[in-house]
Amino acid sequence: MSAPLRLGIIGGGQLGRMLALAAAPLGIRTTVLEPVRNSPAATVARQIIGNYDDPAALAELAAASDVVTYEFENISATAAQTLTARVPVFPPPAALIVTQDRVIEKTFFGTHGIPTAPWAAADSYAALRDAAAQLGYPLIAKTRTLGYDGRGQQHITAASDLEIAWRALGGVPLIVEAVVPFVRELSIIAARGRDGTLLHYPLIANTHRAGILRRSVVPAPDPDPTTQATAEAYIARLMTTIGYVGVFTIELFELASGQLLANEAAPRVHNSGHWTIEGAETSQFANHVRAVLGLPLGATTLRYGAAGLINLVGAVPVREDVLRIAGAALHLYDKTARPGRKLGHVTVIARDHAQLMMRMAMVERLTGTD
Amino acid sequence: MSAPLRLGIIGGGQLGRMLALAAAPLGIRTTVLEPVRNSPAATVARQIIGNYDDPAALAELAAASDVVTYEFENISATAAQTLTARVPVFPPPAALIVTQDRVIEKTFFGTHGIPTAPWAAADSYAALRDAAAQLGYPLIAKTRTLGYDGRGQQHITAASDLEIAWRALGGVPLIVEAVVPFVRELSIIAARGRDGTLLHYPLIANTHRAGILRRSVVPAPDPDPTTQATAEAYIARLMTTIGYVGVFTIELFELASGQLLANEAAPRVHNSGHWTIEGAETSQFANHVRAVLGLPLGATTLRYGAAGLINLVGAVPVREDVLRIAGAALHLYDKTARPGRKLGHVTVIARDHAQLMMRMAMVERLTGTD
Repeated sequence: MSAPLRLGIIGGGQLGRMLALAAAPLGIRTTVLEPVRNSPAATVARQIIGNYDDPAALAELAAASDVVTYEFENISATAAQTLTARVPVFPPPAALIVTQDRVIEKTFFGTHGIPTAPWAAADSYAALRDAAAQLGYPLIAKTRTLGYDGRGQQHITAASDLEIAWRALGGVPLIVEAVVPFVRELSIIAARGRDGTLLHYPLIANTHRAGILRRSVVPAPDPDPTTQATAEAYIARLMTTIGYVGVFTIELFELASGQLLANEAAPRVHNSGHWTIEGAETSQFANHVRAVLGLPLGATTLRYGAAGLINLVGAVPVREDVLRIAGAALHLYDKTARPGRKLGHVTVIARDHAQLMMRMAMVERLTGTD
Repeated sequence: MSAPLRLGIIGGGQLGRMLALAAAPLGIRTTVLEPVRNSPAATVARQIIGNYDDPAALAELAAASDVVTYEFENISATAAQTLTARVPVFPPPAALIVTQDRVIEKTFFGTHGIPTAPWAAADSYAALRDAAAQLGYPLIAKTRTLGYDGRGQQHITAASDLEIAWRALGGVPLIVEAVVPFVRELSIIAARGRDGTLLHYPLIANTHRAGILRRSVVPAPDPDPTTQATAEAYIARLMTTIGYVGVFTIELFELASGQLLANEAAPRVHNSGHWTIEGAETSQFANHVRAVLGLPLGATTLRYGAAGLINLVGAVPVREDVLRIAGAALHLYDKTARPGRKLGHVTVIARDHAQLMMRMAMVERLTGTD
């Protein structure tokens, strides 16, 4: 017999929502902790209203859950660590420590032999000037913590930009990175079970605009034969070191030489993997749920020759127009429209890359340019 | 822009649950009306606690919904008709009138040129004796209304069984049908949109035990070339006549001659179509939701070479054992185990019929013989 299982999620956004939708068919009931009422996840799961670090709310979540996970890395590692006294927490809180601070993250990459663009920490304005002098221009300065979707970042093309950037970012500790001329952005997503089983999804090619992911295509077209293997080796090394359980993502830059540079890591399901709902045998959401609850992982192979996703940012097209496109699947997040906000995505599946490009273009004609 | 849509469902069982899960990604919020607290659908939808014919509860459901549908045919056609004054109701209540009473249903089949086994109405014990004399033995007697999963049925092999059967069925109006030596049981499922678009799923081969569906296989192996076309013509005729909107099902007997006899119809998503969640491009649940809300239908073609389903009746195997089988997808309904109760199903997908048979056998070794 299969007893009912109870999954707790810190965060009730679209990732929590899609995790809850993947959990339900397995007889798993989901509770999310989220301060905002009527969160995207609340339509399909029970919601505890409370802040992510509220001890009473966390205790309530623990009591309602057999396992607790989280949908984003910007929660308190201390709170997550405290929770582990009451209930198993996966991914392990160590993954939060490694990914919350870009300096620790980049150091961690380096320690494990994973190349990155040249970088330096800059905890003061003086340190920022020193870092710029050392790295040269152009540069990108990012807050060490709490950035997402291009927020907390400033491009620096000359010394005269330094003071503006420092002030724009609020005078907080920064990381400064050399801007590397990459050919394209890739991501690798893998799932690791409690028993150590590790499965990779195929490499994904991503396109950003204004710091926000706009489209992903899989398989990444024309990969260098060693690229997939290299990306797999990198992610396996990090996940094994952390004793990771759940879905993990690394964003990568591919250089003209074929070299891969790690940009950042995310200890969670990732926007560039949303196509897996229709495009893979087992979605990243189902595999994260299975992993954290100690269930066997499902196959990560493609269901079709090719798959892609288009983010719906700031506005959503007419539902009927999307549903009429062959191979398109609509996913709305039950969020109020606002410029720059991710409101949903469209998965597109196709028999091959050429057909995928045609179908994705049809979807993109319906979406705004926000 | 796509405004949020609100779907109301009379009934909160597993069909309502799977409809709500299919609705959520489209940005559709579901409310179910169900008297039993913590219904299967309540995990993933809002539940109004109330009887299916409670006027106040129905008014509350209407106020919470842009469209109301139902998950089973044994609700009051009058209540459904009354609801239409407040909110669009699909499938049209006429479909309830046709399918709630087996005598009206069989008459309706005959009026539209769809063959059935010989039958007679028997509203009294005297009429039952007359019907048996006219049809010969063996016979099956069924209550005209409210039967499901083999309940409300009695086999009659000789005149000496008549009185026992009449009493066992409670002395209510019956239909008596000749038992026809069929080769196998099939079902055809189709979806019809508000604009009249009609799409069929491939013919499904079904196996029952103790009146309960146990397994379905699609495509039905070795069909007579005309069988699919005949089944499609039958279902299209009925749906068009009723002005049907939503998913509709006809259960059929296939005779050795290749002839198809209609057994019964269901104005809803059907157990024999649960494999469509993974096995078809668009599931029967997604297409029912799309149809009743006036959205375009999705493709009903198979995603893989073959698909099947195994019902979990009375008991559920260990979750992990099912998830380890390649191509198997687990669907639990959040119901308390009880003998003879449908608690979930396993969808199995495969590249062809031979692989499907092997995989289904692996799943069936895990399930009880209940």
